Amino acid sequence: MRRRDVIAIIGSGRESEPAVTHARELGRLIAENGWVLITGGRDAGVMKAANEGAKEVEGSLTLGILPNREAEISPAVDVAIITDTGEARNNINVLSADVVIACGVEDPGTASEVALALKAEKPVVVLGTSDAAREFFVGIGSGLIHIAESPTIAIAISKQLMDG
Amino acid sequence: MRRRDVIAIIGSGRESEPAVTHARELGRLIAENGWVLITGGRDAGVMKAANEGAKEVEGSLTLGILPNREAEISPAVDVAIITDTGEARNNINVLSADVVIACGVEDPGTASEVALALKAEKPVVVLGTSDAAREFFVGIGSGLIHIAESPTIAIAISKQLMDG
Amino acid sequence: MRRRDVIAIIGSGRESEPAVTHARELGRLIAENGWVLITGGRDAGVMKAANEGAKEVEGSLTLGILPNREAEISPAVDVAIITDTGEARNNINVLSADVVIACGVEDPGTASEVALALKAEKPVVVLGTSDAAREFFVGIGSGLIHIAESPTIAIAISKQLMDG
Amino acid sequence: MRRRDVIAIIGSGRESEPAVTHARELGRLIAENGWVLITGGRDAGVMKAANEGAKEVEGSLTLGILPNREAEISPAVDVAIITDTGEARNNINVLSADVVIACGVEDPGTASEVALALKAEKPVVVLGTSDAAREFFVGIGSGLIHIAESPTIAIAISKQLMDG
Repeated sequence: MRRRDVIAIIGSGRESEPAVTHARELGRLIAENGWVLITGGRDAGVMKAANEGAKEVEGSLTLGILPNREAEISPAVDVAIITDTGEARNNINVLSADVVIACGVEDPGTASEVALALKAEKPVVVLGTSDAAREFFVGIGSGLIHIAESPTIAIAISKQLMDG
Repeated sequence: MRRRDVIAIIGSGRESEPAVTHARELGRLIAENGWVLITGGRDAGVMKAANEGAKEVEGSLTLGILPNREAEISPAVDVAIITDTGEARNNINVLSADVVIACGVEDPGTASEVALALKAEKPVVVLGTSDAAREFFVGIGSGLIHIAESPTIAIAISKQLMDG
Repeated sequence: MRRRDVIAIIGSGRESEPAVTHARELGRLIAENGWVLITGGRDAGVMKAANEGAKEVEGSLTLGILPNREAEISPAVDVAIITDTGEARNNINVLSADVVIACGVEDPGTASEVALALKAEKPVVVLGTSDAAREFFVGIGSGLIHIAESPTIAIAISKQLMDG
Repeated sequence: MRRRDVIAIIGSGRESEPAVTHARELGRLIAENGWVLITGGRDAGVMKAANEGAKEVEGSLTLGILPNREAEISPAVDVAIITDTGEARNNINVLSADVVIACGVEDPGTASEVALALKAEKPVVVLGTSDAAREFFVGIGSGLIHIAESPTIAIAISKQLMDG
């Protein structure tokens, strides 16, 4: 028996591109690698797309870390962890993942999650974000921030980080 | 796609009987029913035994909801959710389960979990507990508390509650 | 400079007697002793009465530990700590108090709070509760549970516990 | 009776300048205005300095929102709220404050707190930070971020925000 490898995909609940397309592709690739997917679990934006991508793959496992009982849960979430801790659940997502992949960090919730990941000394792969976000987080991230140009590259970096 | 059925087993981290034997049997039966097992995730007492029982069954899924990063995780936990919320994680366990099964409630941590389950209006199946605990929780539990005489009966009650 | 002494009053949000009358008297006595009052902060039941009792005394300080932003806050709360952790805030109340006084423990939320206090090894003074509750908590409370017959006695016990 | 006005000062636990000098001055000014000061409560860096500044003023009130029971508490904290929620307590600080003042945001913990404040739609006054941080947070902060050049200006902005 050994514990499963876990990747968190974080990002906004809005339907913004390319974040949502990236998230769907990342979810699929994570599942194909046999990793467990963790997201914020809501039926919206990056969370929804990532879970749907993962569930295209047979045998995938998707865990949603929900803010409270009222949140609408993505039907593509296999197991819903109801935290009732609101935005503080962002800290649970990053603490529970081996690697965190951020699809854009322009959303304050996602920005908080990247910052909490750095505080917890978890590696973060950032995909498709603004120059300002990249400059800020690389500046405070002391080697933990990795910039990826595509979902495939984000997964390749994640694999290296988990094997390392 | 549909969400997985989830049972939480709660109980003390001490190696007390019959709680530990009950927990191991319950874990195995939960896995045989195809349900997901949630526990407090530590490598001790009821949590450890329940996870080990579940992992005797092929295809089982065990989630551990851990208090913090320092806690020793049972090797029989497939995915560790690191909450960093200490005893407040007890609320997450009960909110995330369809049914909660308590192996003894003499431990203050377990007693808090049963009370939080009642507050959240989750059904609780209690196995192997003192008369005082039974009287107290049945008194405040307004129809949510179910007393079981054995792991098999606890599982039968749980199945009815989930089908209901 | 030294940190202030803090007492938590816990109890139901329902308007049940004698709990509410006890809470109001306790709030007043706590303030007269110069102690800080912590409650769950809502504008209901024991919480509301305790805060109102304390604010009858000039110079009193009342802190409310609220479950979320939506909760209605008692106007007698001086400072509202908005936790957004729902019932898990019960753990914050007990961890932040030197002594916890429970006005009745028939409510599941209050029962969880007493249990979390015992888990945290905080002394609990219980006032006006059922025989079943008393028997159960004295049984699991290993010397931390103190039974009081009146608010005045509850305060006398609290003073001893803080001086001890 | 009316609830007290509350300001949170956030910043790193390191002894970095000018953040610590700013924090001490801000703490003093907050107390002189009769506002309650909330900080992370630890005996280090910005938290310690802010509380010490406030306690130079008679009648000041300082609340520390601590990560857990093990954290060393600043002796200048009047009341310690022990959350046992680790970094997730950052969300409690910002939810409980009318205005958040950040002394530098180069620290990941502080960056998470600013982001959580924006998520909660709380105004944030930022003092003495890098160009990258300013550009990033102004970009995602949609009118909630206010840049101050000195503690005096930060307090003037805070006063306007609370009166507004």
